[in-house]
Amino acid sequence: MTRFDDTTTTRLTRTFQTAPAAVPRENTAKYLDSGLRAEGFERPDWLVPDLEDGTAPDMKAEALDNVVDRLPGADFAGEVWPRVEWSYADERLRQRGAEQIRTLVREVGEHVSGVVVPKVGRVEDVERAVRVVADAEADAGRPDGSVRLAVIVESGRAVSDLREIARLGSKDAEAGADDRLDALVFGPVDYTAELGGREFDGERPRWDGLLERLSNEASATELVAVGGPFDRLFGERAGVRFYNGDAYADQVEREAQVGLDGSWSLHPNQTAQANRLHMPSEAELARDVDRIERFHAAKAEGTGAVTVDGQMVDEATFKTFANTVRTALAIAERAPTQAETVYDAESLERARRLRLSG
Amino acid sequence: MTRFDDTTTTRLTRTFQTAPAAVPRENTAKYLDSGLRAEGFERPDWLVPDLEDGTAPDMKAEALDNVVDRLPGADFAGEVWPRVEWSYADERLRQRGAEQIRTLVREVGEHVSGVVVPKVGRVEDVERAVRVVADAEADAGRPDGSVRLAVIVESGRAVSDLREIARLGSKDAEAGADDRLDALVFGPVDYTAELGGREFDGERPRWDGLLERLSNEASATELVAVGGPFDRLFGERAGVRFYNGDAYADQVEREAQVGLDGSWSLHPNQTAQANRLHMPSEAELARDVDRIERFHAAKAEGTGAVTVDGQMVDEATFKTFANTVRTALAIAERAPTQAETVYDAESLERARRLRLSG
Amino acid sequence: MTRFDDTTTTRLTRTFQTAPAAVPRENTAKYLDSGLRAEGFERPDWLVPDLEDGTAPDMKAEALDNVVDRLPGADFAGEVWPRVEWSYADERLRQRGAEQIRTLVREVGEHVSGVVVPKVGRVEDVERAVRVVADAEADAGRPDGSVRLAVIVESGRAVSDLREIARLGSKDAEAGADDRLDALVFGPVDYTAELGGREFDGERPRWDGLLERLSNEASATELVAVGGPFDRLFGERAGVRFYNGDAYADQVEREAQVGLDGSWSLHPNQTAQANRLHMPSEAELARDVDRIERFHAAKAEGTGAVTVDGQMVDEATFKTFANTVRTALAIAERAPTQAETVYDAESLERARRLRLSG
Repeated sequence: MTRFDDTTTTRLTRTFQTAPAAVPRENTAKYLDSGLRAEGFERPDWLVPDLEDGTAPDMKAEALDNVVDRLPGADFAGEVWPRVEWSYADERLRQRGAEQIRTLVREVGEHVSGVVVPKVGRVEDVERAVRVVADAEADAGRPDGSVRLAVIVESGRAVSDLREIARLGSKDAEAGADDRLDALVFGPVDYTAELGGREFDGERPRWDGLLERLSNEASATELVAVGGPFDRLFGERAGVRFYNGDAYADQVEREAQVGLDGSWSLHPNQTAQANRLHMPSEAELARDVDRIERFHAAKAEGTGAVTVDGQMVDEATFKTFANTVRTALAIAERAPTQAETVYDAESLERARRLRLSG
Repeated sequence: MTRFDDTTTTRLTRTFQTAPAAVPRENTAKYLDSGLRAEGFERPDWLVPDLEDGTAPDMKAEALDNVVDRLPGADFAGEVWPRVEWSYADERLRQRGAEQIRTLVREVGEHVSGVVVPKVGRVEDVERAVRVVADAEADAGRPDGSVRLAVIVESGRAVSDLREIARLGSKDAEAGADDRLDALVFGPVDYTAELGGREFDGERPRWDGLLERLSNEASATELVAVGGPFDRLFGERAGVRFYNGDAYADQVEREAQVGLDGSWSLHPNQTAQANRLHMPSEAELARDVDRIERFHAAKAEGTGAVTVDGQMVDEATFKTFANTVRTALAIAERAPTQAETVYDAESLERARRLRLSG
Repeated sequence: MTRFDDTTTTRLTRTFQTAPAAVPRENTAKYLDSGLRAEGFERPDWLVPDLEDGTAPDMKAEALDNVVDRLPGADFAGEVWPRVEWSYADERLRQRGAEQIRTLVREVGEHVSGVVVPKVGRVEDVERAVRVVADAEADAGRPDGSVRLAVIVESGRAVSDLREIARLGSKDAEAGADDRLDALVFGPVDYTAELGGREFDGERPRWDGLLERLSNEASATELVAVGGPFDRLFGERAGVRFYNGDAYADQVEREAQVGLDGSWSLHPNQTAQANRLHMPSEAELARDVDRIERFHAAKAEGTGAVTVDGQMVDEATFKTFANTVRTALAIAERAPTQAETVYDAESLERARRLRLSG
């Protein structure tokens, strides 16, 4: 099982880029292919081949075929998480989603990190999705827990049950055995529609309170939390159309500020921005390398408790320092051009020499 | 029982206008009478004859008499919801409220949609209010569930138990039999006082987080959510006193943005503004008529799933489109002058021809 | 047991000032001594000798000695609440905290109001802290409930369980016997780090939604709620360094606006500001004295219910008026120079003559 504190597999979760798995072009896998081939800052940490809203109804079968066809040969360095169909409000869609999950696990189970299930309802609906994946794994003879689950939180019922849903996937030792749920992703478009929210003067509701809670519940259970898509990709002013980069970066900064681990991307430009904004900066890396060095030095001197920058260092505090360093090292390993652009060689060298357990 | 998805009785819930049921004037029912006679945009969807804070202590009996006297003859096209006395913190007030409920149900039960119970506490207190109404119904020989309940959320205890209170009234099939609770209404004045909130530079707390949660829990259980009163009815500047229409509209827009179904009104001007702001616009009506037409067309072509504007249409999504149309049609039926002012005849015509089930 | 509605012991909770219990100076108790000797507006209502983050690891033993040494002789008019070490994530720290609690209760139990336990996790961790204090009391032969508990809410787990943690300490008659928990204090630095929150353009997350909930849950259970520290004590501009008084006052006003009872202070200047901002103003005192006078007059006339300023007065409403008056009177008794600076002699005179029970 992938554990977040496992140094050998530190997970990168900065970007969650959806790509329609089939589009009405000559190459129906055009977007899937370009997602799988993306390099540098444009390569998402999580690529999400979309069988749901991104794919037209009459292309669902081809979309599934494309995913099954492309994943085995792809040399994609990030994680792949196909999004299937599902809806707490529609049994027919739930059954189609279950069938898609069975096909994916059977055909390309070793090429996906997990599946993304949208429009979940109360915790019982998420439990059902967990069972569907577990059964698909068993039927395909795959190891228990090898195919993970992410859910999109976009119904009033899911938000109402957010605490229970997060606990279902808790990585805490004390939790139950089934911790297949790895990520909570916000879906503002459906959520706003379901709540009857409306736009005034071009302003949609921001759901700041909900984002705080999403970050908190994910943190309390050591799940990944991801923000929602920003679909106003382009703006226009005085006759010129341009990529809406400021507005998207503002949203990503708001998400990173309250501790979301990643942001949703709909476009390589968005991926490039979110990868950078969710990446520890050189200053943050140097600071936390320094803190860990001082922690070990203070401990070696034999004082019982250790404080760094005036704060007592306990396991939780140490873990936040170590997370910065592990994330930077994981980027250096799996996306070296990104790391070279952002970090000093010396900071990375010091980071590599650290002992990252308290 | 009134169900929100019943096309024959689509409920309008844009405005919740309180009117003192007795005031020290020659005609003590002056405000009640004018509320019952209001026309056009000034007619509230819900008129709330107030036996609680709006009526002086020594006029409570007369207030109840006025309600019993006026309702049978009134030709009011909206719903009538008298507010009784109650307080989780005061047994004496609870007993007075219970007595008022018994009188109202017995004397004018067929002329009210329900009763509004203020200052409820934890979920057990709301359960008690439910039982009081049920017992009054039984005693009066009225059909079970015919007199509904709305509660005002204005104590720390009620907000703490908000999820449980909403679930008590859940319209979900899986919920218990007693779903008498129809609406959650916010009461910021008492709430702020109870929490010890204070005003600085004329700014009161806005409770944005609470409004998000109110909208969410109401949505998750299919209850109606209504915002709190805005009591700074008039402003004054440079010697001129004027109706504070901008500030009220700003509040209503904030409430509509996060999906509250209606706003509280203290004055016919406020009712006129909130009725308009909570009404689907012509653009919204045309858009959703169009979406439903395209949905049916796509379905007729036989593709399994249907997407409209790039989103998969499931029962929840379809319901949001249908709600817009049903609300517009209900306004056209029960407040034709409002509908004529806002909608094109052609949009209404197309709306009337639609099949509103998925 | 100290009850908040007990007129003889109305609790002042405006300021929670931490002071390192030992620092590397000639007099290691320098800050503890100056806190205990503070006068006027600079005297905190709660002085918190800090054995945790404020004290270096190699001075923990001396810090505890200083507290045990200084408290018996101090003539401090506020409450003393030492902060011990603790962490839900670190068993070793929990055991050190337990040992510190045992020493404090045994040696200076009659000189402290309670102990502050930081970094608590889920409700079970708070229950453990409750038992540690109870056992220490029993071992020291002190009366049950005489040493109280405050916890610092600064982990995702504690925020997730906030409702349950607050109910553990509920002062409601219906609650369990052990209501030793008196206060919930926010700890934004550790909280932000644990959630992975980040700073952009110098802006840290404000956690507005959490502050609303903290205020609400404390109100619903009649606990004290206190905001987090503001550590940017000094600013600098154009070469001049100055006390950051505007920014701190803004934070305290935001906290008071949503009903927090007190604010955290790190410096006598902050204490002076927060004491004033959390103090009822002369206008508020005069208003609530007037309301209570009118309430008693109306009641004497024999009308059943009483409204004041258009609102029905129930026990909860009356309590908010009475709280203002009791707080002002408690300040007049225990911090007379503060009261004289802020209140008219006549307002205090009228306040003293009031009957403060409904």
